Amino acid sequence: MVDALSCFSFIGNFFGVLPYNAAWPSLIAEATEAEIEPLVLAGVLLSLITVYLAAKVGGELCARVNLPPVLGELLGGVIVGVSALHLIVFPEGAGETGSMLMELVKSTSSMDSEGLLAVFRGESEVVSILAELGVIILLFEIGLESDLKELIRVGPQAAIVAVIGVVLPFALGTTGLIALFNIATIPAVFAGAALTATSIGITAKVLAEIQKLSSKEGQIIIGAAVLDDVLGIIVLAVVASLAKTGEIQVQNVVILIVSAAAFLVGAIFVGRLLSPLFVGLVDQMQTRGELIITSLIFAFVLSYIAATIQLEAILGAFAAGLILAETPKHKELEEQIIPIADMLVPIFFVTVGARTDVSVLNPLNPDNREGLIIASFLVLVAIIGKVVTGFAIFGQPGINRLAIGVGMIPRGEVGLVFAGVGSASGALSESLEAAIIVMVILTTFVAPPLLRIVFKDSDSIPPDDEVQVVASTPSEEQPTTS
Amino acid sequence: MVDALSCFSFIGNFFGVLPYNAAWPSLIAEATEAEIEPLVLAGVLLSLITVYLAAKVGGELCARVNLPPVLGELLGGVIVGVSALHLIVFPEGAGETGSMLMELVKSTSSMDSEGLLAVFRGESEVVSILAELGVIILLFEIGLESDLKELIRVGPQAAIVAVIGVVLPFALGTTGLIALFNIATIPAVFAGAALTATSIGITAKVLAEIQKLSSKEGQIIIGAAVLDDVLGIIVLAVVASLAKTGEIQVQNVVILIVSAAAFLVGAIFVGRLLSPLFVGLVDQMQTRGELIITSLIFAFVLSYIAATIQLEAILGAFAAGLILAETPKHKELEEQIIPIADMLVPIFFVTVGARTDVSVLNPLNPDNREGLIIASFLVLVAIIGKVVTGFAIFGQPGINRLAIGVGMIPRGEVGLVFAGVGSASGALSESLEAAIIVMVILTTFVAPPLLRIVFKDSDSIPPDDEVQVVASTPSEEQPTTS
Repeated sequence: MVDALSCFSFIGNFFGVLPYNAAWPSLIAEATEAEIEPLVLAGVLLSLITVYLAAKVGGELCARVNLPPVLGELLGGVIVGVSALHLIVFPEGAGETGSMLMELVKSTSSMDSEGLLAVFRGESEVVSILAELGVIILLFEIGLESDLKELIRVGPQAAIVAVIGVVLPFALGTTGLIALFNIATIPAVFAGAALTATSIGITAKVLAEIQKLSSKEGQIIIGAAVLDDVLGIIVLAVVASLAKTGEIQVQNVVILIVSAAAFLVGAIFVGRLLSPLFVGLVDQMQTRGELIITSLIFAFVLSYIAATIQLEAILGAFAAGLILAETPKHKELEEQIIPIADMLVPIFFVTVGARTDVSVLNPLNPDNREGLIIASFLVLVAIIGKVVTGFAIFGQPGINRLAIGVGMIPRGEVGLVFAGVGSASGALSESLEAAIIVMVILTTFVAPPLLRIVFKDSDSIPPDDEVQVVASTPSEEQPTTS
Repeated sequence: MVDALSCFSFIGNFFGVLPYNAAWPSLIAEATEAEIEPLVLAGVLLSLITVYLAAKVGGELCARVNLPPVLGELLGGVIVGVSALHLIVFPEGAGETGSMLMELVKSTSSMDSEGLLAVFRGESEVVSILAELGVIILLFEIGLESDLKELIRVGPQAAIVAVIGVVLPFALGTTGLIALFNIATIPAVFAGAALTATSIGITAKVLAEIQKLSSKEGQIIIGAAVLDDVLGIIVLAVVASLAKTGEIQVQNVVILIVSAAAFLVGAIFVGRLLSPLFVGLVDQMQTRGELIITSLIFAFVLSYIAATIQLEAILGAFAAGLILAETPKHKELEEQIIPIADMLVPIFFVTVGARTDVSVLNPLNPDNREGLIIASFLVLVAIIGKVVTGFAIFGQPGINRLAIGVGMIPRGEVGLVFAGVGSASGALSESLEAAIIVMVILTTFVAPPLLRIVFKDSDSIPPDDEVQVVASTPSEEQPTTS
């Protein structure tokens, strides 16, 4: 009955338990879990409705003007987020003002403002975690559609792209900031470090949309982006310890390098050994969801391990996808993961857009100008430093070098980690922080359409089928159950 | 990079932002969103791994001894929950001791205990909401597999079953408690009211598992359970106002009845009018996830409306499923909803089990004995009061009357809402509260196997295929896209 779900809390511990919704508010004074949870659910439902509307309207509009749908999801997020409609906002930092959706929740309940803040925080926490599960599922799906053997084959090329794509922007950015803008060494190093990142999520999503994920270029980009992620973690550790103590803690850096290498190599080798066991187990199971649940357990275990050893959860999910891609179950699994990805992945991209405050791009605000000038330099370095990486590839005649470089451009969320750590350590000035944000926004939003253009230059892609990439594979489906 | 996802918070508002994981704890003193969120994600991943393992081990073991898999998920939840392993526990009420999983999270971070409590609360909030989304998806799926015309056709029978199943247990329970146990009127009324509920989720899941959802009996049970839900909301409003003010607030009760009727009738009629528009819209869309996202928007909108007018979110989801079941897209949608349901629904059943403290069933504890004696009476009334409802059905020769009555037995979460409200108002003694819990546990856990037995008595069901119910339908799939 009325919000009965929130009342499971009563089982086993309902002495002192309270009414479960706002209909009988006078029975108690203070807002509790049992009162708050139905409102959190209402807030989450409203948020998901908003996220899906933004994703679909944005995605469809972009698809119609031949831009990548993921760009539409990001832009849809910007519209509903902190920059415009304030429907999807998060209570981080100073501004705990609540969202417009929370006003709607408030208007339908008699909760006090303290309780509403708890509801808002709970709702934001849930939406944030759903977004993170979304990108975990995305990378799991990308792993499933990747080819481990091909990745290993293009490994040397990917490594070159990754290393150059880290070293060059870092060197150009840091020295340029010092030489041209008279910025001190530590902040310049932070800004330089922010230039090294690549957002694997955005690039992989665009590659999937234009059906280039399994091309040689696509696999080099994915391999390089994964290595870039690992390199980024190391660069961050170095820079953070530099900012904190003025020197580099070699021991920490070595631990990180060893654990990252051990995880990626170990996960893939142990995973490949265990995968026949996985297939046998799934074949033995009789209840519904045997394949998807077993796969999710595997993906979540690797994600958890990766997160715990200070790598990223998404690296674990990608490794899990790569391993399961080699089992005879992969076609069936790919099909089953599609609706789950369709449900969760847009939450990720829309919330990325929603959290982006595009007001720092406004040149009419005098406070933004210094940042915008530095930003122009950073954007230039960010694009050049990654685009040239493709031209360093050897022994691959006819490969689309420009496409590989362009694929590495988007900084996405990743560049902001540096800015965040830099900001917390007090190393960055406000204008330099703003410049990094602008660089991240521009590289993230400009890369998807660019990536389409450079891939179209070299070979013709069927013009309108690209949007249903993964959904189009089931036609080749064959019964894989042994 | 390292937990980059948690760092979206930096976008647009990263002045004063903090390091995003425990690697640089000394930079700040207080735990913040940005620090907590990676640990919440780790906690959620661990919780989901545990939930899925419990669901699959429990479900598979039950399937092998020919018990319903959902019973295995409930029992798996009991094992990992508050009664035994303390892996999945919730910080409600007094005991905020944290779970064993949180100990693991703690051991891999340098977070202080206050921060860990925030992590634990965040993680519990997310798992609770995922469980609620799970039962929303379950009821949406049940709605999709139901037949609105058949439901309307069996409407009169369902109404009889629902009304008798509310009136009889309430009358028997309340008068029995007063006459046999000398219990005062108000607490007796509360306990009687707790006997009226039917847990639609558990019954519907078992019906789906034994492929009886679309049988006449199945549709009567579903229809009656939905009506029971609405009746329960009304009974609760009456009982709660009785406990609070000593009299019944007729106005509130009338508002509830009118809004419930208006919602169910309105949703279905407006929904049917709009469904051609829905199909047309989906056909126009070019980006991935066009059907599932549009359907989820529809389901979540109805869920939100139902929750807001003090009905239940799951009633809205069920109505949405019923409406979309009549569109030409329903086969395609049913297939796409399966993996999503497989992912989310077990979270619901496992957490129901996890929250159940079975220690109140221990007769060796003297404190439990008075409650257990009252409980025996309540269980008897709970079963008899529902089983007889099937025999009140008229004009349906050959119908399995026993099965319908048995289908109404599980009280699930629903009965506990009454106990919770009663407890909060101070009307219930500890032993009566405990008796209600025992009644809920026994009816919930006994109904799934009973339901299988009574359905098998009347007609032969293929013995081992029942477990993959919904997954077996795609073989009849036909292209429904116009």
